[in-house]
Amino acid sequence: MENKEKLAVVLMSGGMDSAVTTAIAISLGYKVAGLHITYHQRTQQRELKAFNDLCDFFKIDKRLVVPIDYLKTIGGSALTDTNVEIEKAAFNRKDIPQTYVPFRNGNMLSIATSWAEVLGASAIFIGVVESDSSGYPDCRQDFFYAFEKAINLGTKPTTNIQIQTPLINLTKRDIVVLGRNFGVPFELTWSCYRETEVACGECDSCALRLRGFQQAGLEDPIPYRIKPVYI
Amino acid sequence: MENKEKLAVVLMSGGMDSAVTTAIAISLGYKVAGLHITYHQRTQQRELKAFNDLCDFFKIDKRLVVPIDYLKTIGGSALTDTNVEIEKAAFNRKDIPQTYVPFRNGNMLSIATSWAEVLGASAIFIGVVESDSSGYPDCRQDFFYAFEKAINLGTKPTTNIQIQTPLINLTKRDIVVLGRNFGVPFELTWSCYRETEVACGECDSCALRLRGFQQAGLEDPIPYRIKPVYI
Repeated sequence: MENKEKLAVVLMSGGMDSAVTTAIAISLGYKVAGLHITYHQRTQQRELKAFNDLCDFFKIDKRLVVPIDYLKTIGGSALTDTNVEIEKAAFNRKDIPQTYVPFRNGNMLSIATSWAEVLGASAIFIGVVESDSSGYPDCRQDFFYAFEKAINLGTKPTTNIQIQTPLINLTKRDIVVLGRNFGVPFELTWSCYRETEVACGECDSCALRLRGFQQAGLEDPIPYRIKPVYI
Repeated sequence: MENKEKLAVVLMSGGMDSAVTTAIAISLGYKVAGLHITYHQRTQQRELKAFNDLCDFFKIDKRLVVPIDYLKTIGGSALTDTNVEIEKAAFNRKDIPQTYVPFRNGNMLSIATSWAEVLGASAIFIGVVESDSSGYPDCRQDFFYAFEKAINLGTKPTTNIQIQTPLINLTKRDIVVLGRNFGVPFELTWSCYRETEVACGECDSCALRLRGFQQAGLEDPIPYRIKPVYI
């Protein structure tokens, strides 16, 4: 039997979910290749810094930063269109929020697949959260199953790639607790959709994160402009 | 009933297959949005010219050119790595040729999906050919079925996008005949993987194209350095 090193491409936005996902991949015995994708989102520079800080922390040498500026050209999202204001958080919404970037995860997974096939990686980790997220259609488990099938039909017969979504059925509270147990450096992560110095505390992403910390009974170490109570 | 215009995103490389595919989409009543993707391939400028010439011919106003230079960074293909020589054509090969770009069609379809969702398009046309192509895994019908499923799970509930592969079961001969019947301007297209002024006549892409014209008993209007007989 060949004693081949297990390699995984991990999509690392620089947020707390991707940081916890990275810790999980490492704990499962994978050597991690970190993939960071920028799409001219408002907080691009801050997220890139978080990516590099996390790679340094986790001692990840194999890093790839891929700009996909076409998502801004294509438009259709408040995250990439500065004319559209980022809404305040609304839990339990039924509609698709304005921050939905059309098929973003499909684009990210395709890039991850190309890189994984060249590296010989056997897994792609993505820190999506279905139940506790903003209701984006490309964060659902069914989508990842379908995409994994497409990957393995669309790559070489010798390529076999699993999509790993270890957080998909967790709540943000669970993720905070898990991250704390893994020693994840939350102070290096960035989640806010609006700001880059002090988190706004009010966008969907801040609200979900703050609520998670509050439900876990822990203090979020990053700075906030205001810290509403969400529980 | 709403009398909504049918809109399709057509992936247009500038080659003869995408030109025939465009003609088919138009004949089916679709208004076409032309998507051209460059990935630092050797013949990028020539293919971009072919794309624009074809859009002019077909009166396509909605055009999007998306550079995905990361495919070159990721590497793994003779098409994007100038250190790897482009092989001479070999019909009926069993292995994956060096010109395979890892998961290229997955990346292209993801971009097409993002654009289609924003435009409200109901179809993506891609001029892939399974049986008569170079054996790339991401040119198989099963891959497209799986990807279409992933698209519709990963986009808004109101989005419904079909992947149309009208050439997939045709031979290059059939495509030449079909294109001739549709009045496709083959002289505006470009297929060669190696050269940009006069086609080499010897790479996989030239060989398949020339054989198609020869089997159809028609003259290929573009210039070739040499014109081997492939039938």
